[in-house]
Amino acid sequence: MEADLLAKDAPGGLDSIFRPSSVAVVGASANPEKTGHTILKNILDGGFSGRVYPVNPSGGEILGLQAYQSLSCVPDRVDLAVIVVPAKAVPGVMEQAGEKGVGGAVIISGGFREVGNDGLEREVIEAARSFGIRVIGPNCQGVNYTASGLCASWPLITRRGGMAVISQSGTVGAALGEWAEDEGIGISAFVSLGNKADVNEIDLIDYFSHDPNTKVISLYIEGTRDGRRFMDVCRDALTRKPVVVLRPGRTEKGRKAAQSHTKSIAGSHMVFDAACRQVGVTRAATVEDLYDFSKALMFTSRHLASGGRGATPWSGDSGARRSYKLAILTSSGGSGIIATDVAQVCGVEVPDLTTATVERLRAALPPHCVVRNPLDLTGDTSAERYETAVTEIASAEGEDFDAFLLVFGDPIPRASEVVARLRGTLQDMASRSGRGPAPDIVACYIGGGAVGKDETTRMQAAGVAVFPTPERAVRAIGALAGRF
Amino acid sequence: MEADLLAKDAPGGLDSIFRPSSVAVVGASANPEKTGHTILKNILDGGFSGRVYPVNPSGGEILGLQAYQSLSCVPDRVDLAVIVVPAKAVPGVMEQAGEKGVGGAVIISGGFREVGNDGLEREVIEAARSFGIRVIGPNCQGVNYTASGLCASWPLITRRGGMAVISQSGTVGAALGEWAEDEGIGISAFVSLGNKADVNEIDLIDYFSHDPNTKVISLYIEGTRDGRRFMDVCRDALTRKPVVVLRPGRTEKGRKAAQSHTKSIAGSHMVFDAACRQVGVTRAATVEDLYDFSKALMFTSRHLASGGRGATPWSGDSGARRSYKLAILTSSGGSGIIATDVAQVCGVEVPDLTTATVERLRAALPPHCVVRNPLDLTGDTSAERYETAVTEIASAEGEDFDAFLLVFGDPIPRASEVVARLRGTLQDMASRSGRGPAPDIVACYIGGGAVGKDETTRMQAAGVAVFPTPERAVRAIGALAGRF
Repeated sequence: MEADLLAKDAPGGLDSIFRPSSVAVVGASANPEKTGHTILKNILDGGFSGRVYPVNPSGGEILGLQAYQSLSCVPDRVDLAVIVVPAKAVPGVMEQAGEKGVGGAVIISGGFREVGNDGLEREVIEAARSFGIRVIGPNCQGVNYTASGLCASWPLITRRGGMAVISQSGTVGAALGEWAEDEGIGISAFVSLGNKADVNEIDLIDYFSHDPNTKVISLYIEGTRDGRRFMDVCRDALTRKPVVVLRPGRTEKGRKAAQSHTKSIAGSHMVFDAACRQVGVTRAATVEDLYDFSKALMFTSRHLASGGRGATPWSGDSGARRSYKLAILTSSGGSGIIATDVAQVCGVEVPDLTTATVERLRAALPPHCVVRNPLDLTGDTSAERYETAVTEIASAEGEDFDAFLLVFGDPIPRASEVVARLRGTLQDMASRSGRGPAPDIVACYIGGGAVGKDETTRMQAAGVAVFPTPERAVRAIGALAGRF
Repeated sequence: MEADLLAKDAPGGLDSIFRPSSVAVVGASANPEKTGHTILKNILDGGFSGRVYPVNPSGGEILGLQAYQSLSCVPDRVDLAVIVVPAKAVPGVMEQAGEKGVGGAVIISGGFREVGNDGLEREVIEAARSFGIRVIGPNCQGVNYTASGLCASWPLITRRGGMAVISQSGTVGAALGEWAEDEGIGISAFVSLGNKADVNEIDLIDYFSHDPNTKVISLYIEGTRDGRRFMDVCRDALTRKPVVVLRPGRTEKGRKAAQSHTKSIAGSHMVFDAACRQVGVTRAATVEDLYDFSKALMFTSRHLASGGRGATPWSGDSGARRSYKLAILTSSGGSGIIATDVAQVCGVEVPDLTTATVERLRAALPPHCVVRNPLDLTGDTSAERYETAVTEIASAEGEDFDAFLLVFGDPIPRASEVVARLRGTLQDMASRSGRGPAPDIVACYIGGGAVGKDETTRMQAAGVAVFPTPERAVRAIGALAGRF
């Protein structure tokens, strides 16, 4: 309850954590094997533009910066304290932080409630609250907010993107960040929740739902302490952007393991799942889903174009499930079959083309193309052949596809240029027709070697989500269709 | 029927294709955008040690080699002809090949049965048979046999490994090859089946089941023309090595798409699936499964150690399903929960540790480790802590785990050294106890950044399969357990 009141009293409190002007790393270390070294190094390497103060009782110099012997010794205002000292020293640090007027603290150190030291954790949080300090953790992997260049976490992720990753598992969050960095799509934020002694996933969903750098909220949690508030905040957040959640513990053994990990009652998975479905939170079944669904939802223009809640398949309020029609175009016959299978399993329609559309396509394409849905452009296709086919289908009378899946199953040069242009064409057609948002384009690039990797990066830079297999692409389309 | 007789008459006929002393590329081109260029270049770049003859009506020089104006002009014996000329020219090439005593042909060119030119395809195959030439294709993406350095295909894959990929989709096969190359595990072969006018998947399963370089056979097919012989050959192959199959077309729409692609009757998916299960063929549900299952099965020592068929969970003959017990050790609590969930869903047991084992582990591990199954070694773990824990569990009275899943959820250096040593320890313990093969070790490396990538490569070089998410690792363990 106290956390709730505090959140209402100080709605901007989290800005101290994500948009600080100055950061102290309490427990900074010159030893490269220590977390206190990694954190300081990543803040510096991440390009944080504010002032950075290492704090270490030995003083001296760390990574080229003067280290102060205590937080109190820092000769400047400190907005954020990142704390990496042993648990028993944390209450003392919090006292100093309070006296210094620190606004936020990220406690990376473990040794609190997760090992039975509930009293120590309570002491730290009570001190923080008495000073109005918001706390992430303890026992966490830190925070990263790329727009501030603030990587007070690991691994080092610097690329700015639209995904805010909030995770009760440091590892799962780190994995998403790494994939996003590797693929060039980046993240807006990564927050490792740890013990959630003060700030929890609900506060953060609320915060990032208002964050202009965030386009999708990606959540890994093992439980939530206030299911009703969680759903209320998600319902509100969904009016602005999609929320995707992975919550393990669906089996009896998994639930018990979750209880051991977080020491909180995990609650019924079925109840949580049903509530998410009702509110419109997208439910991921795997870590790959969490990433893939977030990526697809982040890139779609249909959420904002349709005015947010209620008008999108995933907003969940509609009751009756609206149909969702997918056209599949591929250079790889096999991938087209796989995609069709998965679409059927996910409840995404792959309707036949009209006779008139088939005739138009036959006239526009080489005779060896297999004209149907899925449309097999065959292995000799150019990127331009996709453009011809999509344009013909999208402009045909009686065709109203919600999405086009383009499978590039060979090293097809210039695919990214064509896809970017095609996206513009579809948007123009949609705005001229006035029939609502343009259909989505989702791509799969598979078996394309170095060309494929390069083209994938380019396509995603142009705002089209690309997946490495037809199955993953179609599941992500299932998320766009509100099927998860 | 003719294909069957021929296969029996000339059981070694496929050696001309995979182990030729000399190769002619008929339709070789100096234009880098042409397939006839890519093929010649990949054969040269792949390090093929035999003689290579470009054939092109214009003669001249291609990629530094003298080009001959026709196959007949090549002043040497030719074992393998790789044919990239337009379809209508193929019968003539086949005549020349016959006169020259060529043993095998790979017809990459399309324009045959897949576009309705059944007569042309028949003509080519009849000519080939009259000369005793075995044919791969037509309309395919070529072949690669890494032990010969023969990449008459694309992309260029040169790393030698144990996976023989046989695929009716060039793209799916290429994807598996790429992943295996990227991860450093390599392939023994890639064969793109194309129209299967002569050599089909059955001939190739048989061939690679006897190939000493192949440890697992990975198959993508959309149908098989002789289900009974397919199962008979698989049953025999499984006495030597595992066979994994991905066959799409499980939905009505998918089945229709498959029929369009291969122009053959796909048959009932359920019947095929049930037959595979009965014979002991491992059934992949996705392209990722096909790769992951193949990798896990390739690295296990339990197949040969237990004398092949009948004694392994996946050989399928046992009738009653044997239990399969998994111990999960992790630095990431969340990944442990996810792994436990997936194991339960796959029918892999994650049994509790005995009280005595728990006590031994409590004595051997730091107090903040969460001692249960899954065993959470926590984020500060060293690689050595895994070794301590696995050794304690494996040597404990009353524990008889079939596999250990080691989840490395952070950049943990030296994990590969420890895992390699641990593998040896478990093998020693098993051979001393005489209780059968050692338990398998499977790893997941997630969120480990550059250290993770490096350690993944090293672990796989040491013969331990590593997966990028806990879900994929546990599904692969499900394949080891015979659950797919």
